[in-house]
Amino acid sequence: MSDDLLSLRQRIDELDEQLQALITERARLAEEVARTKQAEGEEVFYRAEREAEVLRGVMQRNQGPLSNEEMARLFREIMSACLALERIMNIAFLGPEGTFTQAAALKHFGHSVQTLPLGTIGDVFREVESGNASYGVVPVENSTEGVINHTLDEFMNSSLSICGEVELRIHHHLLSKNPDIRNIHRVYSHQQSLAQCRKWLDMHLSQVQQIDVSSNAEAARLASTDPESAAIAGESAADIYALGYLAKNIEDHPENTTRFLVVGKRETPPSGNDKTSMLVYTRNKPGALYTMLAPFAQHNISMSRIESRPSHQGMWNYAFFIDIEGHIEDNNVRQAIDELEESASLVKILGSYPRAVL
Amino acid sequence: MSDDLLSLRQRIDELDEQLQALITERARLAEEVARTKQAEGEEVFYRAEREAEVLRGVMQRNQGPLSNEEMARLFREIMSACLALERIMNIAFLGPEGTFTQAAALKHFGHSVQTLPLGTIGDVFREVESGNASYGVVPVENSTEGVINHTLDEFMNSSLSICGEVELRIHHHLLSKNPDIRNIHRVYSHQQSLAQCRKWLDMHLSQVQQIDVSSNAEAARLASTDPESAAIAGESAADIYALGYLAKNIEDHPENTTRFLVVGKRETPPSGNDKTSMLVYTRNKPGALYTMLAPFAQHNISMSRIESRPSHQGMWNYAFFIDIEGHIEDNNVRQAIDELEESASLVKILGSYPRAVL
Repeated sequence: MSDDLLSLRQRIDELDEQLQALITERARLAEEVARTKQAEGEEVFYRAEREAEVLRGVMQRNQGPLSNEEMARLFREIMSACLALERIMNIAFLGPEGTFTQAAALKHFGHSVQTLPLGTIGDVFREVESGNASYGVVPVENSTEGVINHTLDEFMNSSLSICGEVELRIHHHLLSKNPDIRNIHRVYSHQQSLAQCRKWLDMHLSQVQQIDVSSNAEAARLASTDPESAAIAGESAADIYALGYLAKNIEDHPENTTRFLVVGKRETPPSGNDKTSMLVYTRNKPGALYTMLAPFAQHNISMSRIESRPSHQGMWNYAFFIDIEGHIEDNNVRQAIDELEESASLVKILGSYPRAVL
Repeated sequence: MSDDLLSLRQRIDELDEQLQALITERARLAEEVARTKQAEGEEVFYRAEREAEVLRGVMQRNQGPLSNEEMARLFREIMSACLALERIMNIAFLGPEGTFTQAAALKHFGHSVQTLPLGTIGDVFREVESGNASYGVVPVENSTEGVINHTLDEFMNSSLSICGEVELRIHHHLLSKNPDIRNIHRVYSHQQSLAQCRKWLDMHLSQVQQIDVSSNAEAARLASTDPESAAIAGESAADIYALGYLAKNIEDHPENTTRFLVVGKRETPPSGNDKTSMLVYTRNKPGALYTMLAPFAQHNISMSRIESRPSHQGMWNYAFFIDIEGHIEDNNVRQAIDELEESASLVKILGSYPRAVL
């Protein structure tokens, strides 16, 4: 090895010792926090709003060369390890293992937790309600239909609060060794990805066989060996298998961010950049909605999402799931909701929680 | 929040800033290493022996409160993120996602890699040979039979080198709400775990229905709701579901460590604590083996494993897979192998590589 490399390695070794000393000191401080909380009768060890604050600070300070995502990921893991000194949290998620929902759970909580794959969204809620799991992670928005509704419907009958959201950005491309889309006879992809590109496929490749495989990486590998085929997969798969792009960003929803909610038993204090989700029941027709929502506009509160659902409750015909910017402890949010309660039959606050950090 | 907690948080915030500055500095040094290597015409970015050295140093210095495993894991992730600045490695593994082999790949390489699940051990070898994947991870020793042999057989026809090993320790317990094993009518577990406890089950619960479920955590959850059932699962599942122990450590192999090999195209220099794996072909009967192996004893080299396999090669009847302590560049290892080559028909060195760090 050259002297230059050797001296760089020595500098890294010295730096690693300092790094380790700081991580150790951080873990000791985390233990002291836990002892102090215990002495003060405070029961909550995991603080969603505190973690969001720390990660936002990390990303604001970051100047590279590591990306904000990677730097935040490392701090997430450090916090996860420190927290596990006190308690190894059990995180229920909509399984099986290896799904996007598990990836979302680990992105949110780091790897020093135990994850518990469950068969249905209802099971996830039940395990958190019973205390077997500390938190649950469920998908709430993606283009595979039905998933959203199951999650929204669970909130109608649950006492759980939303204490966080996680976003995974997913772009799909049509990749092939073949430069001409007219020569494609088979499309390989994971079934979730096929579903997320259904409209595009119906429009552009309606006569082509769709083959559901275990992962998009596997799809790309198969496409690399079969020139009459294409794969739906991400950018990295295109690089690895030297596949060309027959079409980019073919997902039906242009901002194909799959969004997940973290549910738990407690409410989350403000983190400085929060959202609030609520369920609004009404006897009125959807047409009356506009008037009902006026308080948000008047108090200068943005709505980021609204979904209507049949309420399944005898007394009310409609339920709306609404996401707004801000925390229930913010004055304008509190006032707008007070006013909304005057026109709605019932407003159920599902939780105020930190906006997804990354 | 109390003043005590507030001041602890401030200390953590200050510490996090220092921590981030060091991680950033480490990433810059990693970039400088890459530039220096490039200037010197050196092509290898990932250095298995260097990573093993760093992690051993981290574990030796560690004085808690974080466990050696957690501290090493954090450094693994930091190195993984730094390395990914240069190149995002593609790691092929025996899939599907969510298996122990994927866990082993991520334990070894950290999470800043792309993992590629493949259907067979042969596919993993092929993808590394073709250069589509930088490294491959395959199981080599566990009690589910057949897996070992597939991996060993691949080495007969492959030019790949072993550049690392990964161990996952797995203990299984029989857990139930029911205190009496005679009342158990069903056992839930993942099929891998059922296979790993087959002998114990045959001996103690031969009349009982075995139900293969998606994970051991799921098995424990089912057992917690069905008092006529038990689950085979780990300690954490027992805690989470408040299950009692009907029997502990029921895995057929008392040291139920599942072992995986990392394969790549290059040989790995000594890390200071290495193993060497080789394939020895002979025309002799297995009985002649003892004499053949004398050089290892004479040079004071421990053998950690030996397996015989039909060679599938016309010329030789037997092939032995042998693992020894030490690196092929060590004088005594080199000499012992030279002597072995005199009595064996062929000795194929599969690789010298760092012993599993944790």
